[in-house]
Amino acid sequence: MKRVVIVGAGNVATHLGRALQNKNFVVSQIFSRTENSATQLASDLRVPFTTNLQSLDREADIYFYCVKDAVLCDVINKIDIPDALHVHTAGSLPLSIFESHLQYRRYGVFYPLQTFSKTRKVNFDEIPIFVEGNSSEVEEEIRQIAQTLSKRVFSSDSEQRKKIHLSAVFACNFVNHLFSIAEELVKTAGYSFDILLPLITETVNKLNELSPYDAQTGPAVRNDQNIIRQHLSLLENKPEFSEIYSVLSESIYRMYKKDIQTRE
Amino acid sequence: MKRVVIVGAGNVATHLGRALQNKNFVVSQIFSRTENSATQLASDLRVPFTTNLQSLDREADIYFYCVKDAVLCDVINKIDIPDALHVHTAGSLPLSIFESHLQYRRYGVFYPLQTFSKTRKVNFDEIPIFVEGNSSEVEEEIRQIAQTLSKRVFSSDSEQRKKIHLSAVFACNFVNHLFSIAEELVKTAGYSFDILLPLITETVNKLNELSPYDAQTGPAVRNDQNIIRQHLSLLENKPEFSEIYSVLSESIYRMYKKDIQTRE
Repeated sequence: MKRVVIVGAGNVATHLGRALQNKNFVVSQIFSRTENSATQLASDLRVPFTTNLQSLDREADIYFYCVKDAVLCDVINKIDIPDALHVHTAGSLPLSIFESHLQYRRYGVFYPLQTFSKTRKVNFDEIPIFVEGNSSEVEEEIRQIAQTLSKRVFSSDSEQRKKIHLSAVFACNFVNHLFSIAEELVKTAGYSFDILLPLITETVNKLNELSPYDAQTGPAVRNDQNIIRQHLSLLENKPEFSEIYSVLSESIYRMYKKDIQTRE
Repeated sequence: MKRVVIVGAGNVATHLGRALQNKNFVVSQIFSRTENSATQLASDLRVPFTTNLQSLDREADIYFYCVKDAVLCDVINKIDIPDALHVHTAGSLPLSIFESHLQYRRYGVFYPLQTFSKTRKVNFDEIPIFVEGNSSEVEEEIRQIAQTLSKRVFSSDSEQRKKIHLSAVFACNFVNHLFSIAEELVKTAGYSFDILLPLITETVNKLNELSPYDAQTGPAVRNDQNIIRQHLSLLENKPEFSEIYSVLSESIYRMYKKDIQTRE
């Protein structure tokens, strides 16, 4: 049984910790600089925690870094355990952030492509995990850990991973922001966000059968200028929403223009 | 049992026709100017069709107009059956498009808030339907039809409906376009769109517990300028995607700025 220290106590740390315990990894310690989060996750997983790097468990086999991108380098540089395997979980940061630690021989990346919230259960089994190692042996080692947790494990280098992360910003963060805007608009009509849920669910369920390209509907793909003008006039007092409306409608029109012309 | 003529043979006509038949309405005829669609839907519903307005069944109780916005007025003006109930299904068009028909006494709107594709089954029961009538009696009549089909029926006037339709463009059409962009980006990294599906599903499932405002994550809400710059440089050769990235990131930042400042 592998012994694991989890560095971080946020959403990724929480879900990864649970998933590792479910697969009989021994989480020996949680480290977090924030006592509150450390206490909470440690009590959730029933393991010790520390907020002091001096008290870090130095006997673990694997150190998983699940901290914010902005502090990751700093934390890595302060930990000095040469013989263990060191793995970060950040989509947008390269493998090379470990390079400054010249004495580290085994390090890599384990990037689970999912949006984690503490309050939600997720099925780790289905989450695509992208792995990279500083040698093929190390990558294989990380791959095996990932395969214990998920059916969908892929190799990816740092450049590929950045693009995956970027596409996730479009497919998750930006999509969610459009839901926020839709909520604001539907409230101005006197209804609650709930009325949009069946539409949103079907928009996503369609993707099991159709590519998003083929699933596109609406005024922009039909180039229905009457409706587009009407919508823009409804947004007159919301210049930032009307800018988003214009930019996205233009982009849809451009993406399908060739096909529309072919059809005509 | 009410006798219904469906004017149109597209996606809305198809799903509405099936739903009405399931609830024992008699669909007596399909009218469409496009013979192909008319034939297909008529054979699907096992009812007669016509492509000629002169042969329209004049004995129906209800005429449902499920045609494109651009041709709706024209079709309405060519049909002249004063005693029936006339109902259109367009979110963005007002009740008043029936007004030119001075002899019509009973007309209204029945707007199902859903994205329909012919190949997909939808559960009409859950679809919010927004009804409006030219008098309270007529609206009640339309409401009762809607309640036969769905548990979620709301009154809405034409101004409210326009806003609902606008919010649906954000929550469905624009969201789907972001999925198309994400697909294009993830392919440049060498992966298929499938790898994004668990993330997309969870983004939507979260909405059952959290408002989209509370569910927001990602670099823009954290105002993580390092990642934002990195992403924009990945999009250097895709100016239209980088414009969308900037506009949405800016809008997210503005929406949460107050909260970020409060937290600091």
